[in-house]
Amino acid sequence: MADTVTFRPIGVVRSQFTTVEGMPIQAAAATGIAGRIELDPDLVEGLDGIEGFSHLVLVYHLHRIATSRLTVTPFLDTQSHGIFATRSPARPNAIGISTVRLVAVRGHVLDIEDVDILDGTPLLDIKPYVPAFDDRADARTGWFADRLGLLGGTRADTRFD
Amino acid sequence: MADTVTFRPIGVVRSQFTTVEGMPIQAAAATGIAGRIELDPDLVEGLDGIEGFSHLVLVYHLHRIATSRLTVTPFLDTQSHGIFATRSPARPNAIGISTVRLVAVRGHVLDIEDVDILDGTPLLDIKPYVPAFDDRADARTGWFADRLGLLGGTRADTRFD
Repeated sequence: MADTVTFRPIGVVRSQFTTVEGMPIQAAAATGIAGRIELDPDLVEGLDGIEGFSHLVLVYHLHRIATSRLTVTPFLDTQSHGIFATRSPARPNAIGISTVRLVAVRGHVLDIEDVDILDGTPLLDIKPYVPAFDDRADARTGWFADRLGLLGGTRADTRFD
Repeated sequence: MADTVTFRPIGVVRSQFTTVEGMPIQAAAATGIAGRIELDPDLVEGLDGIEGFSHLVLVYHLHRIATSRLTVTPFLDTQSHGIFATRSPARPNAIGISTVRLVAVRGHVLDIEDVDILDGTPLLDIKPYVPAFDDRADARTGWFADRLGLLGGTRADTRFD
């Protein structure tokens, strides 16, 4: 297996969030918050047909996360959990995923909503969201089960900067 | 923005699939197909609490994909689409995501099911699947809308090798 894997960003995410502190902690808690994708203009042909989708799964580099921890106390809890049992950004590989709403396609610029992503974030991939692929019925959600009621009122702080 | 982003695999996915040809093309079409994650033993502390989750979102490197295209004719269709409007592996950045079922945790080894991932695939991240974060009601699914009935009977071929 290769020791490392290297990717080249396909574009950048623009949003109103210039600092981690105060950001919504999931796209599901960022309803209506607008942003945009500025795709590398050389890749615009890859957007053909994307206007048919209401939601996109974005894969991006959490470029402002300076720490990586194996256990964390996530924003939604006061207890510690293994990093792979959380959605905390302080991961061994700083990869984020968010499902955002596609509002409009303007050339190489995509207007999006439900944006929980920092301004200037390097974008690695755009995938169409397809519930038949991405959703699972009757999932058990571990420690989140008792904490999801806090989602709407919880904002990020500087603990992972 | 950085020109490149480099990650170090956190482990490897093991499965029965040693070639792309014949693989199920989505985890949702791989029901019951068993595999396992062999996590770097140094990261085992990061699994604390993961046993509470029924499903995991895996982020991985599509390490056997040799081509990158801006338009593709995906496995489920006979028409060409922009790569970002498909889930085809021939992406500018060869990043795959799959939601798999977690069956058991044995030290640094996770037994999983619904595996549509090639044996030996470098794993980049494990996230707990949380429907409140990852699911969206009433999504429009573009060209997939008429083609999802073909999912169960469609297998990958060598077009992207």
